[in-house]
Order: sequence, then structure tokens, then C-alpha cells
Amino acid sequence: MAASALDVPQATGSQGEFREKLVAEGLLLPSSVPGVTGQGPAFVALRHRLDRAIDRLLANEGAVAMEFPPIEPRHDMESVGYLTSFPQLAGSVFAFHGEEAEALQLGEKAHAHQDWSGHLQAAGLVMVPAACHPVYPALAHVGVPAGGVTVDTGPAWVFRHEPSDDPSRLVAFHMRELVRAGSPDTVGAWRDDWRDRALEFLQSLGLPAAFDEANDPFFGRSGKVLARSQRAQKLKFEILVPVGGDNPTAVASFNAHSDHFASVFSLGADVHTACLGFGIERCVLALLFTHGLSFDDWPADVRAALS
Amino acid sequence: MAASALDVPQATGSQGEFREKLVAEGLLLPSSVPGVTGQGPAFVALRHRLDRAIDRLLANEGAVAMEFPPIEPRHDMESVGYLTSFPQLAGSVFAFHGEEAEALQLGEKAHAHQDWSGHLQAAGLVMVPAACHPVYPALAHVGVPAGGVTVDTGPAWVFRHEPSDDPSRLVAFHMRELVRAGSPDTVGAWRDDWRDRALEFLQSLGLPAAFDEANDPFFGRSGKVLARSQRAQKLKFEILVPVGGDNPTAVASFNAHSDHFASVFSLGADVHTACLGFGIERCVLALLFTHGLSFDDWPADVRAALS
Repeated sequence: MAASALDVPQATGSQGEFREKLVAEGLLLPSSVPGVTGQGPAFVALRHRLDRAIDRLLANEGAVAMEFPPIEPRHDMESVGYLTSFPQLAGSVFAFHGEEAEALQLGEKAHAHQDWSGHLQAAGLVMVPAACHPVYPALAHVGVPAGGVTVDTGPAWVFRHEPSDDPSRLVAFHMRELVRAGSPDTVGAWRDDWRDRALEFLQSLGLPAAFDEANDPFFGRSGKVLARSQRAQKLKFEILVPVGGDNPTAVASFNAHSDHFASVFSLGADVHTACLGFGIERCVLALLFTHGLSFDDWPADVRAALS
Repeated sequence: MAASALDVPQATGSQGEFREKLVAEGLLLPSSVPGVTGQGPAFVALRHRLDRAIDRLLANEGAVAMEFPPIEPRHDMESVGYLTSFPQLAGSVFAFHGEEAEALQLGEKAHAHQDWSGHLQAAGLVMVPAACHPVYPALAHVGVPAGGVTVDTGPAWVFRHEPSDDPSRLVAFHMRELVRAGSPDTVGAWRDDWRDRALEFLQSLGLPAAFDEANDPFFGRSGKVLARSQRAQKLKFEILVPVGGDNPTAVASFNAHSDHFASVFSLGADVHTACLGFGIERCVLALLFTHGLSFDDWPADVRAALS
């Protein structure tokens, strides 16, 4: 059967139960759309604790802070080939470009909850799909120094259109990435070093974190070939933790891009890039699943690491 | 002449010069789309300083933290009438709902930078237009306590589709809002109190901030009537600071909603709401324009207030 963009994994029974508990305790504030979730005070506080712990983890990295909105130019997403690999995950922003008479029609349909999408046109903007994506055109603007550079995106909002009732599979979530651009050997060594440090960091938070080779969710039959090739070349690694049930969930990932982004954005003849990303909400959910819903009852060493 | 959604104020000469300086100094990282801008390390550091100063300003408010993604359900935006008042500013998220054969066509067009928007459909999601918007349905979920409640949205990404080369008019920016829900008299007193406190706060940062009555940018001819009515009822106030040139720019605003949001989301028979919002990037830009581009050269009392 042909793959459909609407095939999205939904919650298992125990993941659904975990979601219900998070909502009942006010940690999550559900909306009417699956995967679009507000965060209550206790969840926000945990996210900030984790952000600060990652700040400390990165303190000696000498990373340059670059932060970006949750939208980026459509042209950049087209250039990197995202729409070929992940058409099912992309979000595009449409807007109204008309005049008053048409605005009146749009307003009346919207008021009646009827379909007003026909009044909109593509606005040249897409949702940022990974925190590192806007970094590459920005590096093209400022230039990659001879010794290479590491960029810290901060906790950035990213978008994946896979509406699900699994609390770990959000349509919008924070991803914090470190991006390394430089010579191929230093970038490779950087990624291997951070793979170990990130695993150690997550284990220091009491998480039963394990490391695995992985592939991206490329779409369709041709996607299966890309996924196999990515695994064969060991381009992607993930750190997995059980969240809400049976299947371990990726809370961090490490990607080697070779010269893909560097060549699209002309970052230099001998430049490679790699990135490390933490899924912030998934890390918080993994902590809540592992240690329980009340921070005050967590092990003392974990609370100290998240001060 | 009929108003068009594409009529957007562009930079004056001095606003354009200010933008050029910000880019040259690496404070802003321009993209290929006007109004969509990355932030370099010095800008990010200033934003974090301001966030912490606002944390301290709010410390005794007893506000409940609720944070939301930059997207919200389309149904909620329809329900509050945003599309009638501001159709020109709204952003809607479209996604691909098809199967493999169509995905192939989409990918090929995208690769060639051709129009692939015809392969997309509305995804039931819109860009959050103001940080307070997702708060009201969340309050409907958790309930408004008898004594009322104040919510702190944190610095949330919001979207206004008005692409401009004026550095103060961004398509995506952080807005931090306090939202008050409660009895009409306590909500009114809360807004008046915060109007004074916010003005004092911005003046304590050395900004030549002034206070004025205002109206929202309602669309078209019927919008002019709404704007006059909003001013006559004194429902909106702004704090203005010169940023980049001649026209003072709103960096904070105060809105009284009477029972508008409360009745749409059934928050209670005698509940009114009001909000106070800081435009975070505009505040940072106002500081840079007032004190110069290097934080280390700012007046000592301003640096102390932003520690």
C-alpha cells in the first residue's frame, strides 16, 4: 500500500494513560488539536530547569548563540531538499493577500467555522522543521572562520506535521541544537565526543538512556532506500529513553551532514557540518515518566543536577 | 481606494539606516524574507537580560506560568473573531495530506523552486497572533478561581503577516504577556496599576517612554469604525519609544477585553479579562537605539537594571 502523509503513529494504551495523568495533574494543557499542547506551571518550571542544566553542559563549548523564529523562508527549505525527503512533516504558512470585499467573505466564513482556506495564498514562509536549519544560511551570511564554529540555537520551536495523541509526538516542540561547521575531521571528532557527553548527561539525570544507530522518517518507498543508506553510512545516532510505555523514544539525536548543507549554502570548499539536538519536551516527559510527576519527590542527585 | 492586505508600512530612511547598522554589527542575521530575522549573540544576550528583568518585575505578582507553542487551533482563532478584524495579519498552516505519487510531484517542483502550494491543504492550525490568545481556552480547561487569576505567558513567539524592512516591524517576534481574568472591577484596577508600573519599568531602563491611547490595526473601512469605538471606550493603551527614527514605536500595550474572551470560552458569568504585553524585540531595539549598540557602554544604572 502506498504511504500516506496522514499515517501517523498514535498512542499505545500506556502512552495514552501517561498523557491522561499529565493532563489531570495540570502539567499539560490540551488544545482541540492532537499534538498541540500548552504547558502548565510545573511543566514550564521543569523545562527551565532542564534549559539551565544544558546551559551548564555547554558552558565550556565556546558556542556562538544564534536564535531564530519558528518560521523560515520557503526558498531555504526547498534548497536543502526537505520537501523531497519529508513532505509529510512540512508546514507552510499561507496568508490573505486580497482587498476589502474578499476580506468580508473570509471573515464571514471564518465566523461560521466554514472553509475559508481558498482565500489564502502561500506567503513564502515555512515552519522551521529542525532548530539547525536557519543556522546554515546565517553562517553563509557571517562566514565560517578558519578553525570552524559551533552554534547554540537555544531552545527553538520546531514543527512536524504528525498530529498524534502520543504525548511524546508533538506537532510543535522545543529543540535545542548545537551545530558544528568546520573541516571534516574536526566535525567527525566533535560529533563522536558529544555523543558520549550527551549520553552521560542524560544518565546523570537518572534516565535509563541508551544509544542506537537510527534513520530519519523519510517518506514512502523511495524513503526506505534513503533510510537504509543513512544507516549504512552511520550518519544518524539517537539516545533513547522509555517515555510513557513500551517503545523507547528518541530524546536526542546526532546527525552528520557531510557537505550537504555546506554546499547548498556555499559555506566553503572543505567545510562539513554536524549537529546534536535535544528534544526538550521529550526529555522533560522522560524525566516525569522515570521519576514521577512531582519534582520534590525525585532523587536528590537528580534534583541537584536540575537546580 | 480599497485597503489591500499587501499595504504594509516600510522603513523610513533613518529606520533603514538603523537596520543596516544592526546587521553590520552582527546583532541581526537577515534572511531572504523581510521581517524574518535571526538574532546574533549580542542580541540574544540582551533579550535574555530583558527577560530576567521582567522576571524580577513580575516576581510578586503571583502569576501562573502557562506557555504555548507558536501555533494554535484554527477553530479558536475563528471563534474570537480575529479573521474579521485582522484578516491581513493572520498566518495559516498548510500541510501535505496526499500519497506517494503526489509527494514525488511536490518534491520535484520544490527542488526546482516552482509553485507547489497546490499540493497543500489547511491543517487546522494558525500562527498564534498574540501571546494571550491560547490562554483563554486553557483557562476554560482549568477554570478561573473565585478570586481571579493572573497568567504569565513567558516570552512567546507570535506572528503578524506584515513583511517590512523596518527592523521594528517583524513578522515573528517574542511577546510576553500578563493576562488577568476576574471580576470586572479587579480587572480594571489591575490594568490601571500595571500601566503605571510598566511605564516606570521602561523608564528605569533609560528609555524615553511615553504613554498614549491607541487602537488596533483593524482592516479596511469597517475597521476604521472599530478603531474609533476602541479609542472612544479607552480599551487600548500603549507605551511608545522612538526606535530607529522619527515615529515613536509601541513597545508595550494594555488591552481591556470586557467579557469578549470570557464569553467566547465560557469563563464564567461575571468574568472580564485584560492583558499587558511587552514586545520583547522592540524593547531590545529601543534600548539599542537609545543607548547605542554596545551594552558595555550603556549607563551604569541601566546595566545594573539589566543584570
